[in-house]
Amino acid sequence: MKLDKLVGDRFKERPSDCAIDSHALMVRGGYIKYVANGIFSQYPPMKRISQKIERIIREEMDSIDGQEVLFPVVLPGTLWDESGRYQSVGSELLRFSDRNGSPMVLGMTHEEAAVQLVREYANSYTKYPFMIYQIQTKFRDEARPRGGLIRVREFTMKDAYSFHTSQEDLERYYDKCYKAYERIFARAGVPEVISVQSDSGMMGGSISHEFMLLTPVGEDSIVLCKECGYRANMEAAENIVDNAKTGELEEIKLVHTPNIHTIEDICEFLHAPLESSCKAVVYQKNSDDAYVVVFIRGDLDINETKLTNFLGEDIHPAVITPECGLNAGYIGPYKLEGDFTVLFDRSLEGAQNLSCGGNVEEYHYTGLNIERDCGKVEYHDFAKIAEGGICPVCGKKAITISRGIEVGNIFQLGTKYTKSMNMTYLDADGKAAHPIMGCYGIGVGRLAASVCEVHHDDYGPIWPITIAPWEVHICCVRSDDPETHAFADQLYDELQKERIEVIYDDRKATAGVMFSDADLLGVPVRVIVSPRNMKEGCCEIVTRDKKISKKVPVGEAVEAVGAVLKELYDEVQKGCK
Amino acid sequence: MKLDKLVGDRFKERPSDCAIDSHALMVRGGYIKYVANGIFSQYPPMKRISQKIERIIREEMDSIDGQEVLFPVVLPGTLWDESGRYQSVGSELLRFSDRNGSPMVLGMTHEEAAVQLVREYANSYTKYPFMIYQIQTKFRDEARPRGGLIRVREFTMKDAYSFHTSQEDLERYYDKCYKAYERIFARAGVPEVISVQSDSGMMGGSISHEFMLLTPVGEDSIVLCKECGYRANMEAAENIVDNAKTGELEEIKLVHTPNIHTIEDICEFLHAPLESSCKAVVYQKNSDDAYVVVFIRGDLDINETKLTNFLGEDIHPAVITPECGLNAGYIGPYKLEGDFTVLFDRSLEGAQNLSCGGNVEEYHYTGLNIERDCGKVEYHDFAKIAEGGICPVCGKKAITISRGIEVGNIFQLGTKYTKSMNMTYLDADGKAAHPIMGCYGIGVGRLAASVCEVHHDDYGPIWPITIAPWEVHICCVRSDDPETHAFADQLYDELQKERIEVIYDDRKATAGVMFSDADLLGVPVRVIVSPRNMKEGCCEIVTRDKKISKKVPVGEAVEAVGAVLKELYDEVQKGCK
Repeated sequence: MKLDKLVGDRFKERPSDCAIDSHALMVRGGYIKYVANGIFSQYPPMKRISQKIERIIREEMDSIDGQEVLFPVVLPGTLWDESGRYQSVGSELLRFSDRNGSPMVLGMTHEEAAVQLVREYANSYTKYPFMIYQIQTKFRDEARPRGGLIRVREFTMKDAYSFHTSQEDLERYYDKCYKAYERIFARAGVPEVISVQSDSGMMGGSISHEFMLLTPVGEDSIVLCKECGYRANMEAAENIVDNAKTGELEEIKLVHTPNIHTIEDICEFLHAPLESSCKAVVYQKNSDDAYVVVFIRGDLDINETKLTNFLGEDIHPAVITPECGLNAGYIGPYKLEGDFTVLFDRSLEGAQNLSCGGNVEEYHYTGLNIERDCGKVEYHDFAKIAEGGICPVCGKKAITISRGIEVGNIFQLGTKYTKSMNMTYLDADGKAAHPIMGCYGIGVGRLAASVCEVHHDDYGPIWPITIAPWEVHICCVRSDDPETHAFADQLYDELQKERIEVIYDDRKATAGVMFSDADLLGVPVRVIVSPRNMKEGCCEIVTRDKKISKKVPVGEAVEAVGAVLKELYDEVQKGCK
Repeated sequence: MKLDKLVGDRFKERPSDCAIDSHALMVRGGYIKYVANGIFSQYPPMKRISQKIERIIREEMDSIDGQEVLFPVVLPGTLWDESGRYQSVGSELLRFSDRNGSPMVLGMTHEEAAVQLVREYANSYTKYPFMIYQIQTKFRDEARPRGGLIRVREFTMKDAYSFHTSQEDLERYYDKCYKAYERIFARAGVPEVISVQSDSGMMGGSISHEFMLLTPVGEDSIVLCKECGYRANMEAAENIVDNAKTGELEEIKLVHTPNIHTIEDICEFLHAPLESSCKAVVYQKNSDDAYVVVFIRGDLDINETKLTNFLGEDIHPAVITPECGLNAGYIGPYKLEGDFTVLFDRSLEGAQNLSCGGNVEEYHYTGLNIERDCGKVEYHDFAKIAEGGICPVCGKKAITISRGIEVGNIFQLGTKYTKSMNMTYLDADGKAAHPIMGCYGIGVGRLAASVCEVHHDDYGPIWPITIAPWEVHICCVRSDDPETHAFADQLYDELQKERIEVIYDDRKATAGVMFSDADLLGVPVRVIVSPRNMKEGCCEIVTRDKKISKKVPVGEAVEAVGAVLKELYDEVQKGCK
C-alpha cells in the first residue's frame, strides 16, 4: 500500500477531548473516527490491526476445539425474558421496538442466544462437551464511554460459550481456555497481561477471572500481594481486618460536636485515628429508593460491587431528604430508628470504643461498642481492600493496588442460563439434567487500544509485529532523486513478492513529515532510503522501538529486512509459554 | 473436524414453514437457526461458508484498490438527518433512542457513514480516487422477511463506496468494480450470475446494475431480450408500445353495463380485445392519502416503482370510499371530476376507440379517443413490460421475463450524498467541488443461500468447492471394523497434513444415515471407507454432484483426493474471465 493513498489523516496536535494517550494517538494516527458518543468508525490501519487480533483469537479458539458460529446483533426481548435479564439488566441493555412493536434488544452478551442455538441439539450427554464462539459486534449503552476504544458503546468482541455435563469437566475446560488466553495475549505482543480473580457480576456463576493489562489509566483497581502473588480485582478481593482488642470498654457518651460533619473532622476533634470511628455510608435501592445504611470503619471505603451482590440489586448514592429520618453527617448505629436496611461491615467486628454519629444534629457518640450497644449484629464484607492491607490468602500485610484495563474475562457460569432457559440433556442413565456453562470474552478493539496504551512513546504507538497494521514501512526520503526513488520502488516490489506487508511512503515530503507519520503508524520495521544512504550503497533499517538500527547494503536489503522480521516474531514467540 | 462433535442437527423432514428449497435445506442441514422473524443464528457450516465468500470478496475488493474499514452498526439519527434520509426512508430504517434520548438508527446502508469518515480527509483532488469498503452486519426492518437467508432483517453485507473528481473517473471505476463482481460470483461458483440494469430507488443516482441469479423462486422480475441480449430489472425496463392507428375515430358513447366491474368483463361484453380498453388503477400517496388515478391500456399492468419515482414519494393501493368521488369499477378519464392526480401511461398514446369506465355506476364509454375527448394530456411510462413485449433497445418483440435473486448491486450515486452532507474538495484550480460517488453491495448470506437455491438436489446443497464448508467428507462406514477405522483415521490425518479441510464421520451409524448427513452438508468430495472397499484394498471417491465416482487403491487415496480437488478448483477457475 502506498501511503499517499491511505485513507485517513495524521496530525500533530493532541485533540483536547482525549484524556489518555492511546485515544489521542489513535485519533492523531488516523486509526479511528468519532461518530457518536462511544461509537467510532475504523480507518484501514485499525481494521488491519483488528483483523490480525481476530486471527490470533480464532486460531487459539480453534485449537481448544471451539466452533465458530454467528449470533444476531438484534435479539428478541422474549429471549432475554427467558433468562430474566430483560428485567434485571439496567439501561446499558438497549431496548427498543421493531416496526411491529415487538420488543428487541441489542446484544451486549450472548448467553441467551448461545443456549437458544444449542438447546435442541445438545439433548444427550454424548454431544458434550463443546464450545461455540463468535467474533461479532456488540452494543452496550454505557453511561460514560471514555478513552477512545477503551470503553465504548459499540465494539467487536469474541465471546465463547462452553457446555459441560459436570463441574469437573467445566473446570478442565476453563483451565484450557485460561491457557489459550495467555497464548492469545502473548501472541498479541502483551505477555505482561495478568489474570486476576474477579467478580461475576450480572453474568452469574461463581469462579471467574479477568485478564488485565496494568496501566495507570486503567479503570479497574487490581489487588496484588507482594508476598504470595495473590491477584484479584478490587471488586472481588476479600478485605481482612484485625482489630486489636484493648479489653477495656469505655462507656458510650453523647458529645456536642458543633460544625463537625465528616468522619475526618470528628477524629481530629477527638484526637483519635480514623480506625477508631464508625462511618455511615448511605445508598438507595434502584428499585424502590429504599434507604440502605452501611456502617464501616472510618478508614475504609465501601466496595459497591460487594454491596450490590449482597443486596441482589442495583443501588445509587442516597439523596438524604429532611423527611427521610436520617441526619446527614450525624448518622450512627446507636439508637438509629427508622425504616432502613442497616448493614455492618466486617471491619467493625471486634472494634472497640468507636466514635460515631449521634443521630441528632451536632452530636456524636464516643465509646461505642457495637455488640454491647446495638445488640447482636451480622457482619459482612463490604469494604474495599486498601494499599498495605492484609492479603486474604497469605495473611501478610503486603497488598498493593494497581490500575488495570480488563482485556478479557472467563466465567464459570454454572447452570444459571440452562436452568432458567430450560435446557436439558439426558445423561448416561437416561435422566434429565441441566448442562453447566462457561463463557469467555475478549474485546478486540479494547485489546488494540490497551496494547497502544502500554506500548507507545510520545510520537506514536509501537505495535508488536504480530498485530501491526503493516510489517515494514519504507520511507523514500527525497523521492525526487531518480536513483533513490527507483531503489525504493524496487524494494517495495521485492518485499511484497516475499509476502511481506509493506506501507510505502514516496511522497514529496520532508524527512520530518515522513518520520512523524511513520511514528504515528507504529510499524515495527522502518526502511529509510535516501540519497545520502544511496551514496554509500546502503539503506537504513530501524525498528520502531529503536532497539535495532543498522545500515545494510542495498543488495542485501530484502534479506536483512526478513532477518529483522524473524527476530521480532521470535521475540513474541518467546513470550508464549 | 469430526462430525460427531459438529454443533447443529441434521434431519429429514422438510419444515412446514420453508417455502423455498434453500431455506428448507439450510434448516435441515444445520446451517441456520431461527431466532426471530428475519433473524437467524449461524451454525459452524454456515459460518464457514460465509467466511469463504467474505475472503473472495475481500481479495477482489483489494485487487481494485479497495481499503477495508469498519462503520458502526448503530448510527446517530443526526447523521441520517444530514442526507435527509432520516425522514425520507420508510419504516425499514429502524429508529430508536439511546439511554439519553438521542435518536439512533441501525445502519441498513452506510453512505452517510462513508461520507462522514472521509469528509475532512479527502479535501484535495490529489487524494482521489479512492474506495473504502466494509463487511459488516446490517439491519433492515423488512415488513415481510422470507426464504431463510434470501430476505432477512439482519444480514452481513459487503458495502463499498468510491469517491471521484469526475463522472468519467467514476465510470472507469464502475467498470472495474463491475468486472470484480463478475470475478467474485464466478469464484463463488456461480458464473451464471448476470448483470441487469436496475432502478436506483432510495439510493439516488442514475446508472445502476444488479447482479442476478436466475431462479423461479427469485423475488425480482428480470426482462431479457432474446435478440439483442438487453437485460434489465422489470422496475427499470422501459415499456414500448406501438398502437396501430385505424384512422377512423368512432364517436364516444355511454353504454349501460349492468354487473360489469372489471376491464376483462367489459371487453368480453363488447367482444373487444383488452388492448382496446383504458383501465384505471388507483393509488393513494403515503404522505397525505391523496388519490392518484393512473390510466393504462387494459392489457398492461402498472410498474409501481416507475410510478413512485415519478411522484417522488411512496404510494399504496387506494381504499375507494363512497365519499371520495370515484366510482370503483367505473372509473374513466372522460368527464372525471374531482381532486385527483390523473396520470396517463404511454400505452394509451395514439390508442383509438377505447372502452373505459363511465364514472357512473353501471355505465361505460366506448369510442374514447383521449386526445379528442380529454384534451391535451401528457403520457409517461408507468407500465410493466410483458412477456413478448418490444425490446427498448433493438425494438424487436423478443422480451422474455424471468425471475431472479439479486445477489449484488452497483450504483453510480453522483453527488447526492456529498452535496447534502456538504463534502467538498479543492480541485487543481483551487475551486471547491463536490466529489462524485459510487457504491457497491453484496449480501454474503443471501449469496450463500442463492448458490444453494440454484445448486442443490433433493438431498441437499451441492456447494462449489470454493465456498463449501469443507473440501472433503470422509465417511467411515462400519467404524466398528478395526482395519476400516484405522485407515479412515490415517486418511483423516494425512489429508489434514496436506492442509485439506476435512469433515470426518466415524460415528457408529448406518451408511444410510452417514450418506444423508453428507448430502445435507454438501461437501464436494466424499471419500467412502468401508470393509467391503478395504477388502479390495480400495476406497471410493465420489463428488457431491456425482460427476466423478471412482475407486482408488488406499495407498493412492491422498494423492487421488488432491487430484479431484484440483479438478474442481480448475473448473471454477475456468468460469472466471
